[in-house]
Amino acid sequence: MAARWLFLGFMLLILVGKAETRLSVEKLNNEVITSHRDLAADFKEMYFKQILDHFNYNSLGNGTYDQRYLITDQYWKKGYGPIFFYTGNEGDIWEFALNSGFITELAAVQGALVIFAEHRYYGKSLPFGKDSFNIPEVGLLTVEQALADYALMITELKNELGAQTCPVIVFGGSYGGMLSVYMRIRYPNIVAGALAASAPILSTAGLGDSAQFFQDVTADFQKINPACRDAVKGAFQKLNTLAQQKDYSRIQSAFSLCKTPSTPKDIHQLNGLLRNAFTMLAMLDYPYSTHFMGSMPAFPVKVACETMLNGTDLMLALRDTVGIMYNSTGQLTCYDLYSLYVECADPTGCGLGFNSNAWDYQACTEIEMCFESNNVTDMFPAMTFTEQQREQYCLKRWRVLPRPGWLKTQFWGQDLSAASNIIFSNGDLDPWANGGIRKTLSPSLIAINIPEGAHHLDLRESNPADPESVIVARKKESEIIAQWVKAARKESS
Amino acid sequence: MAARWLFLGFMLLILVGKAETRLSVEKLNNEVITSHRDLAADFKEMYFKQILDHFNYNSLGNGTYDQRYLITDQYWKKGYGPIFFYTGNEGDIWEFALNSGFITELAAVQGALVIFAEHRYYGKSLPFGKDSFNIPEVGLLTVEQALADYALMITELKNELGAQTCPVIVFGGSYGGMLSVYMRIRYPNIVAGALAASAPILSTAGLGDSAQFFQDVTADFQKINPACRDAVKGAFQKLNTLAQQKDYSRIQSAFSLCKTPSTPKDIHQLNGLLRNAFTMLAMLDYPYSTHFMGSMPAFPVKVACETMLNGTDLMLALRDTVGIMYNSTGQLTCYDLYSLYVECADPTGCGLGFNSNAWDYQACTEIEMCFESNNVTDMFPAMTFTEQQREQYCLKRWRVLPRPGWLKTQFWGQDLSAASNIIFSNGDLDPWANGGIRKTLSPSLIAINIPEGAHHLDLRESNPADPESVIVARKKESEIIAQWVKAARKESS
Repeated sequence: MAARWLFLGFMLLILVGKAETRLSVEKLNNEVITSHRDLAADFKEMYFKQILDHFNYNSLGNGTYDQRYLITDQYWKKGYGPIFFYTGNEGDIWEFALNSGFITELAAVQGALVIFAEHRYYGKSLPFGKDSFNIPEVGLLTVEQALADYALMITELKNELGAQTCPVIVFGGSYGGMLSVYMRIRYPNIVAGALAASAPILSTAGLGDSAQFFQDVTADFQKINPACRDAVKGAFQKLNTLAQQKDYSRIQSAFSLCKTPSTPKDIHQLNGLLRNAFTMLAMLDYPYSTHFMGSMPAFPVKVACETMLNGTDLMLALRDTVGIMYNSTGQLTCYDLYSLYVECADPTGCGLGFNSNAWDYQACTEIEMCFESNNVTDMFPAMTFTEQQREQYCLKRWRVLPRPGWLKTQFWGQDLSAASNIIFSNGDLDPWANGGIRKTLSPSLIAINIPEGAHHLDLRESNPADPESVIVARKKESEIIAQWVKAARKESS
Repeated sequence: MAARWLFLGFMLLILVGKAETRLSVEKLNNEVITSHRDLAADFKEMYFKQILDHFNYNSLGNGTYDQRYLITDQYWKKGYGPIFFYTGNEGDIWEFALNSGFITELAAVQGALVIFAEHRYYGKSLPFGKDSFNIPEVGLLTVEQALADYALMITELKNELGAQTCPVIVFGGSYGGMLSVYMRIRYPNIVAGALAASAPILSTAGLGDSAQFFQDVTADFQKINPACRDAVKGAFQKLNTLAQQKDYSRIQSAFSLCKTPSTPKDIHQLNGLLRNAFTMLAMLDYPYSTHFMGSMPAFPVKVACETMLNGTDLMLALRDTVGIMYNSTGQLTCYDLYSLYVECADPTGCGLGFNSNAWDYQACTEIEMCFESNNVTDMFPAMTFTEQQREQYCLKRWRVLPRPGWLKTQFWGQDLSAASNIIFSNGDLDPWANGGIRKTLSPSLIAINIPEGAHHLDLRESNPADPESVIVARKKESEIIAQWVKAARKESS
């Protein structure tokens, strides 16, 4: 979901560097096209003139903004093949395009046009430029506006591209998967089906157990070795003991902090930073090294447990373990408490990306994530995040009061009996999985569980290291999507 | 739909007079309760603290307003019986409650709780009081906000009343019927089924023929007697001839106008006023006299044709015919051109009600009604209302640009295959009927056509003069609704 922007400093430099390699720039229908022929899929970067405020004709948003999208027709059976539309989530759209290779692989097989649309207020789709995160400008950042953006973009691009009769399938991972679900239930007139990978539509709607997330992070490490979980828990306990003794200098040296902590707030921040590394290791527990939301080795949870159980000093082991996440390059000589991790309204982290503001605002408004660790069902120190704490924070930071229950009202929560044509895929290694739909609900609301899968592994491109379970999942997804496309053609003919 | 507020001066005095007969006022859960024991159903008038802006946490609407609703539990099997929820449309909610007796009759049979919710910006549900129609305050008047109001109100009232497991059926007539459709497709998690009476969901979404409406008005008169249509057409032609001759004083005397017309604009206004009377006569062609959107005799179209064909002077006959609508009391000695009819973004009229502003704004934004008469397929003078004219008017009046296609994108237009549990009822006499769904689309998207029915006759209370077709329709509606309620219980248990 979110704890992803940690090494965005590094990552974006790489990505943007790539994205800026513009081989050609041309004008078509008021949109700037940029070719990126150096990328695996031949995406063109375009901009769509988008309505600023779909829900108020008389607001400050009485205008348009430039919404970025990536498009490739290299596999498209022009005017006939389906449209595969990625409902961009909380980040630069290139990052999702570069890490969702399954979609283009599938497009190659099914003759599809591929579009990756960037979510408003992220990447280069900033409605008010650098003022986008001011108050009240930030107010137009909502799930509903984002969905309406996609609905309008699909409708107009279909007309523009002569694709009026081409069925549209939406894809998304994580929050993007939630958006895919919402697109199908909100706009079935536009979208024939949705592949929602690792979409925690329940836990982010305030449904379920606030302890689930960190419990499932813990379970990943326990599965490798129960001693690993115990070691992590033990290390946090040692830290806690030192903190109670106010032995701050020992804490500094144990964790290689750049500055000596001096307050309970600093210790809280350190605990958050440490816990967050485990969140990321669990989410990104892929069977090969990746450069998505930071750089990770293959099987990072296994690597973490090896590190954790290597050596005799638990705190040093903990420091080195979180280093897999925070210091993958080995360049850092010390950890800066407040720059490596930013606490926000999402207890799984908002990170340091230039869009962390946007995600924080969403977590303060519609997206409900009061996840807590309790040191009983998980290996972390007890860190509460109650609805009251959320309110307090959000009022202070954004002058907004969250509205618990709204997402459930607006997007149905678990009451999905009127929905159809959605695949809910989840990886058992992913701490977000149990916040989503894990059981098939009807012949057209299909849960696909991937035992060896981390966070939306199925959306990633094929890899020799892929476990059998994700190969099977992708095959099933591919078949179902082909059926949806076929049925949609039949219906409209 | 709209051409209804003509005699609102009279009507509202009567209604509000009734509504103000407050027998008891008490406080419960911050809401004021008022009993109206003098009314047929024992409605209590209450207010719900409603979110002002559901779609922007940081707008001028960062607060609440008092939304009015009427409620009666006199027939409710408390905690078990269903909830019948009227999705209020463009007017004072008492007017709909007093003219939709079928809902309470059905509640008596099915043990239902009945709620009539007032639409924001109408009646007493003015979010910003007397400033509600200023710019930008009017900006929070949208279909989406109204639907979210109802979703939230239902959810919270269910909790408050111990009705959590009670299935909800929504009802609505005209624009209210459109809202019922939208509630079911948007919030099937909250609403088990919808009876949408006379809901022109296609024609108001820009789908269909712009000539249909006035053609169908004409057909009603033609059905009574083709000579009637010819007489109306002939009278308009005479008026046109006089106007071309600039014989304004003869026009004044023929039509008993209070002031002598002096410009083409005055003549245009007169044509609009005259045409509008026929719209109202056709819409309200009930088999007994009514006091809904003005006072009407029984079978007003028949009465109109008798008047039209009585006497030798066509223009005098036309004057007397529109008098059925404008001068039902016989008190007017002359017609004031600009006070009896107000031209607006709805060519079927916005009338003179204190909420005509609200409907005009809606017709300038989401609701598309570019209906035209052409003097070929209808009996009226050719009066265009193009999308360009609409734009021009709306920009000047409200500083907004309409967004054609938006309603179709947002609420699916004719692409209803993903919808379920909706009855689309229409009366063949109603000029709105052919702007709606006339054919059953699936086993749970059922069209009920009522040959002798005018505008949502089926929602009105039983009357000895009811034609057989509406009795049959109500019986069928009643059976289907009982099935929905039963199925919803089964599903949630």
